[in-house]
Amino acid sequence: MTSARTRDEMLPGFWAVIPAGGAGSRLWPLSRSGAPKFLHDLTGSGRSLLQETFDRLQPLCADRLLVVSGEAHLPSVSRQLPSVARDRLVVEPSPRGTMPAIGLAAALIEARDPEAVIGSFASDHVIGDEEAFRDCVREAVAAAREDLVVTIGIEPTFPATGFGYIQMGDPLGLDEAPTARHVARFVEKPDITTASAYLDSGDFRWNAGMFVVKARVLLDEVARTDPELAAGLRAIAADPRSLEKIWPTLTVCVIDRAVAEPAAARGAVAVVPGSFDWDDVGDFDSLAGLHPDSRGGLHALGDADMVVGERSSGLVLAGSGRTVAVVGVEDVVVIDTSDALLVTNRTHAQDVRSIVDRLRELGREDLL
Amino acid sequence: MTSARTRDEMLPGFWAVIPAGGAGSRLWPLSRSGAPKFLHDLTGSGRSLLQETFDRLQPLCADRLLVVSGEAHLPSVSRQLPSVARDRLVVEPSPRGTMPAIGLAAALIEARDPEAVIGSFASDHVIGDEEAFRDCVREAVAAAREDLVVTIGIEPTFPATGFGYIQMGDPLGLDEAPTARHVARFVEKPDITTASAYLDSGDFRWNAGMFVVKARVLLDEVARTDPELAAGLRAIAADPRSLEKIWPTLTVCVIDRAVAEPAAARGAVAVVPGSFDWDDVGDFDSLAGLHPDSRGGLHALGDADMVVGERSSGLVLAGSGRTVAVVGVEDVVVIDTSDALLVTNRTHAQDVRSIVDRLRELGREDLL
Repeated sequence: MTSARTRDEMLPGFWAVIPAGGAGSRLWPLSRSGAPKFLHDLTGSGRSLLQETFDRLQPLCADRLLVVSGEAHLPSVSRQLPSVARDRLVVEPSPRGTMPAIGLAAALIEARDPEAVIGSFASDHVIGDEEAFRDCVREAVAAAREDLVVTIGIEPTFPATGFGYIQMGDPLGLDEAPTARHVARFVEKPDITTASAYLDSGDFRWNAGMFVVKARVLLDEVARTDPELAAGLRAIAADPRSLEKIWPTLTVCVIDRAVAEPAAARGAVAVVPGSFDWDDVGDFDSLAGLHPDSRGGLHALGDADMVVGERSSGLVLAGSGRTVAVVGVEDVVVIDTSDALLVTNRTHAQDVRSIVDRLRELGREDLL
Repeated sequence: MTSARTRDEMLPGFWAVIPAGGAGSRLWPLSRSGAPKFLHDLTGSGRSLLQETFDRLQPLCADRLLVVSGEAHLPSVSRQLPSVARDRLVVEPSPRGTMPAIGLAAALIEARDPEAVIGSFASDHVIGDEEAFRDCVREAVAAAREDLVVTIGIEPTFPATGFGYIQMGDPLGLDEAPTARHVARFVEKPDITTASAYLDSGDFRWNAGMFVVKARVLLDEVARTDPELAAGLRAIAADPRSLEKIWPTLTVCVIDRAVAEPAAARGAVAVVPGSFDWDDVGDFDSLAGLHPDSRGGLHALGDADMVVGERSSGLVLAGSGRTVAVVGVEDVVVIDTSDALLVTNRTHAQDVRSIVDRLRELGREDLL
């Protein structure tokens, strides 16, 4: 058992990387292309998901932190993280998937310190117990120092079909990472029967896309499957002025496919099982679940005085300055913004994406 | 069988009276104290309920028509009925129920023509077949010329517990009103068992508050139960400047209680059974029912281009210029206005009134 003091010490040579991208279209019209999910306070903490991610990592990395985002979001990211220096904000000229985004950060860090360990964590997830999370990161960093690719595996709480899974193997046997285990394999989103079997076995964890690995090791892994991508990323790090020229030539790919799965097949991946509460806030059902009072009544995101409910339960965002009244509707989701209103329920939360598709077909990009 | 030409002839000595009052609080936030139900186009015809009422009666009465409304609504009424002269708009200084409102119109008409027959019809009901309606009025006027109080009884289509009923007696036996019958009694809103029995018997009709009666006969009926009320109304008609002084002293009462029930007990009431479609648009369930496409899909009141639905049915008013998206909700009711939004469903349409009560408790009269 480490003491609170030990737990909150910085990790030398550890760099946090926060890819801040993704439209969050299932959270439309709250999440927009101009103001995606990570820029919003969805927990009622007064901090956006991005700010909470920063707050969670900062005790471990101090100012060794890079945020990777699109040009369009740079002003918002900069405004939300005023203590982060401009040169810590990495702009991806266009979205090319998580691998080039994280790989670019890794290459920039490698150029400073090839043995640095990076930890990449999504900007739009919610984590319940920050200290338990940091304990996991601490173990993951220790395992990563052994040149492994390390992930943090989330304990499944239900047979989710919307997440990929990590099958755990034998314990790693590292003193500094006592709970870490080898990864047998990564598996894609399963069907419900398979997901239930995974849950029952106790050997599977949700893949939350958290990766802790030496910058050099990560890029060497990339080089195994896509040498041009690794070379391109390292060339940009060597001469940042080449970014605009090289970036469009890089393979569009995700880190799971490009690194995690092939490395696991070679036995080069470890997992630290996390038991902290975690939520990717993937849709309004998930968001409602973060607010337990939405079960028996209406939970108001934002100004509760603007919400009047009678015999109703669910989630209401009164975000346009108007009074929102809900009568006799269970598990409702009402998202009221200045130019668009969504009414749905928790059961159909996944289908919100289809509205976004419809609006695009209708040429209403102004609402997306 | 009368010809179409005959049916559309004016009825000499017939005056239409349209009481235009009532908040319609179960249609909040569409219906407001400042813009009640009767001022809205709820059928998609391009005409408000008041205008449709006027259009329906005008072929029978030409310019012999009085609209009784509150001071606050006078400008709107006048704007919506530009062909109605200012002296045909009667202002009730304060709401005192239907009896003083209709009685005041009756007294004003009696002063001009004691034998005139007046027909009073609510300003906020929807009627499907106008010619069938006018045929009923024609019969009712013929019966009223025999000094009877005459009502038009709506054929029940389901065992409604929200309406009063009229029990029909023997046929009247008038050549000019072949379908008219005596009224055995008026009954209050029944419970569901009683309502079902009424429906099965075939002897009961819904009371839609339609009364056709000589002005003099009506006031004489009032005088039987409330001589001061009748005298007060006639005094105002004799000297309209006395309105502000006398009006506040008049009994607050409704015409059913003050006239229809006591007159029926004396055998002085007749009913013409109507078989036209009729709806009082009492709540959003009723309003949705007027738009059959709301059963399988979303019916948009107003600008349909602003409504996007996926696997949803019900009624949506996009009334604030914002796009309204509905995903996976059946029988939904979404009423989106510039300062208030209501989300409910057809089953709970009656409960909307409780929101209005809540808002009043909260001191939000600005929204009512």
